[in-house]
Amino acid sequence: MRIKYEELLNKFEDILYRHGFEKEAAHQAALVFAQNSLDGIYSHGVNRFIRIISELDKKAFNPAATLVKTNSFGAIERFDGNQGFGPLNATKAMDRAIELADQYGIGCVALGNNNHWLRGGAYGWQAAKKGMIGICFTNTTANMPAWGGKNTKIGNNPFVVGIPKSDGHCVVLDMAMSLYSYGKVEETRLKDEVLPFPGGYNKNNELSCIPKEIEETGRFLPMGYWKGSGMSIALDLIISILTNSHSTKDISKFDYEIGLCQVFIAIDPTKFNTAEQTDKIVEGIVNDIKSSIPIEDGKSVRYPGERETYVREDNLKNGIPIIDSVWETILKL
Amino acid sequence: MRIKYEELLNKFEDILYRHGFEKEAAHQAALVFAQNSLDGIYSHGVNRFIRIISELDKKAFNPAATLVKTNSFGAIERFDGNQGFGPLNATKAMDRAIELADQYGIGCVALGNNNHWLRGGAYGWQAAKKGMIGICFTNTTANMPAWGGKNTKIGNNPFVVGIPKSDGHCVVLDMAMSLYSYGKVEETRLKDEVLPFPGGYNKNNELSCIPKEIEETGRFLPMGYWKGSGMSIALDLIISILTNSHSTKDISKFDYEIGLCQVFIAIDPTKFNTAEQTDKIVEGIVNDIKSSIPIEDGKSVRYPGERETYVREDNLKNGIPIIDSVWETILKL
Repeated sequence: MRIKYEELLNKFEDILYRHGFEKEAAHQAALVFAQNSLDGIYSHGVNRFIRIISELDKKAFNPAATLVKTNSFGAIERFDGNQGFGPLNATKAMDRAIELADQYGIGCVALGNNNHWLRGGAYGWQAAKKGMIGICFTNTTANMPAWGGKNTKIGNNPFVVGIPKSDGHCVVLDMAMSLYSYGKVEETRLKDEVLPFPGGYNKNNELSCIPKEIEETGRFLPMGYWKGSGMSIALDLIISILTNSHSTKDISKFDYEIGLCQVFIAIDPTKFNTAEQTDKIVEGIVNDIKSSIPIEDGKSVRYPGERETYVREDNLKNGIPIIDSVWETILKL
Repeated sequence: MRIKYEELLNKFEDILYRHGFEKEAAHQAALVFAQNSLDGIYSHGVNRFIRIISELDKKAFNPAATLVKTNSFGAIERFDGNQGFGPLNATKAMDRAIELADQYGIGCVALGNNNHWLRGGAYGWQAAKKGMIGICFTNTTANMPAWGGKNTKIGNNPFVVGIPKSDGHCVVLDMAMSLYSYGKVEETRLKDEVLPFPGGYNKNNELSCIPKEIEETGRFLPMGYWKGSGMSIALDLIISILTNSHSTKDISKFDYEIGLCQVFIAIDPTKFNTAEQTDKIVEGIVNDIKSSIPIEDGKSVRYPGERETYVREDNLKNGIPIIDSVWETILKL
């Protein structure tokens, strides 16, 4: 079925309020789930909602806690997220980075002791829609071995870049350091399919496309083998230094995946360019990429975030696709 | 043979001076080649020197040109590199980002109309050795297809992160967006070997480990398939917006690979942490990674930049390994 954005938003808000969020926070948190769903990122929207309500009921995070500034110097600030609702703290942190960029040209906010930020791309879009270049990244619990190792040591630490464009066709990269997410591997197994490229190791130390074999070892593959492994380590280091809070190894010691930390950087291109100049630069690069000769006839080469723009327009017009059973469960929350 | 660092440095300086560099610039440029060689990155040190002298003789770049500030706002500055010697401009740009970070906590320098910066890792080390977190990236000429495309549209746009540590064992990630460099594929072909993982497409649209097949199509593989492709596009966009200079598509129209542009970001962790706190954080994460159970017995898992630290110590003590014929050619320059 397809549910209208407004209906979904109101339903989320009502449930979040009844399960312990304050009125305004319930609205803001509902926006996170509704907008991620609207953009077609259902895994971090409507399909994650039930689990988050369950965590809320188990007091896995505190809906009343919010980020507090603990340190600042010029264009950089450090906040303690107090293990509040991750995406709300993250949204406020990116907003603050944007304010700093407005003041100094660039701003950086380090958010320690937060929680999972759900969909990283959301904060890339947030910056881009305000005309800013956004760069942000999070650490996670250890869910992959480092390159050359067998046991899980590094996080899939998503890295996000948002590029503004006045007409809303922003370019947004949202890239985890694992080649595939757990969700993608599980989904492929449930469909009885194989992965298009090897996604991890089987128990014989061989790369495998078979979901079950990878799930058995837990040895998921970093994107680009040694490259994703190195980048995951580098991002965790930046985050841990700037927050002086939990690194991937610290988070891995907790019973749940809590206390995740993030860094948000915003840069204001309007200090150097008019919006028209920036638009022209973005359009030039995007059009050149789109003019590629496709491998598969009839398919076009996509730029990062292109899909979201069209899914959003479609979902806004025709409603957000929701699995019937998920919607029924949500209605009972 | 192995040549002592000082001898190599003096030889480079003498040659660069005789081929048109001013005295001080010759010394600085010689340092670039000598230090890249010292760190074991011979492809961007001693093995590149002859080619650069040849380009210098052909006036492919102007050794007297230097970067000039064209715009600034708070913690961000824009420079025109005037197509001078890429690595010297890049070094000065990172130095300026470090000064801005000292003043504002974070600093960003956009360097347009420069040239190839040779080894990106050098600028990560430069920041890290000064106690700064460094993040920098460059665009290049188009040398890979975007994901889903057949013709070369994106650059391998290296991305660099430098993490400080007081004892000099910094963590430095230096990562091109292609899985393998042209040099690595060529070297593998010359040795009559195959690549350990598929590095590109053959003419039947199949992924291949055979260097010759990939070189025939020119369809090199981005690291992490769609991920490296997306990140390459995102980095080119940031660079092109902040410099308002040449994007990958612009550089590709030039006869040579000239006019490359870079962005340098430095963040000063001492604004929030003591050096001891930062060291402890870095050591904790590095030690955890190093405690991985290795896939191959006897081999240990490495962190980014680890190799350089040990190669540097060895090369400083025992001299820099140089292919005899390369040294003979250099002596004749």
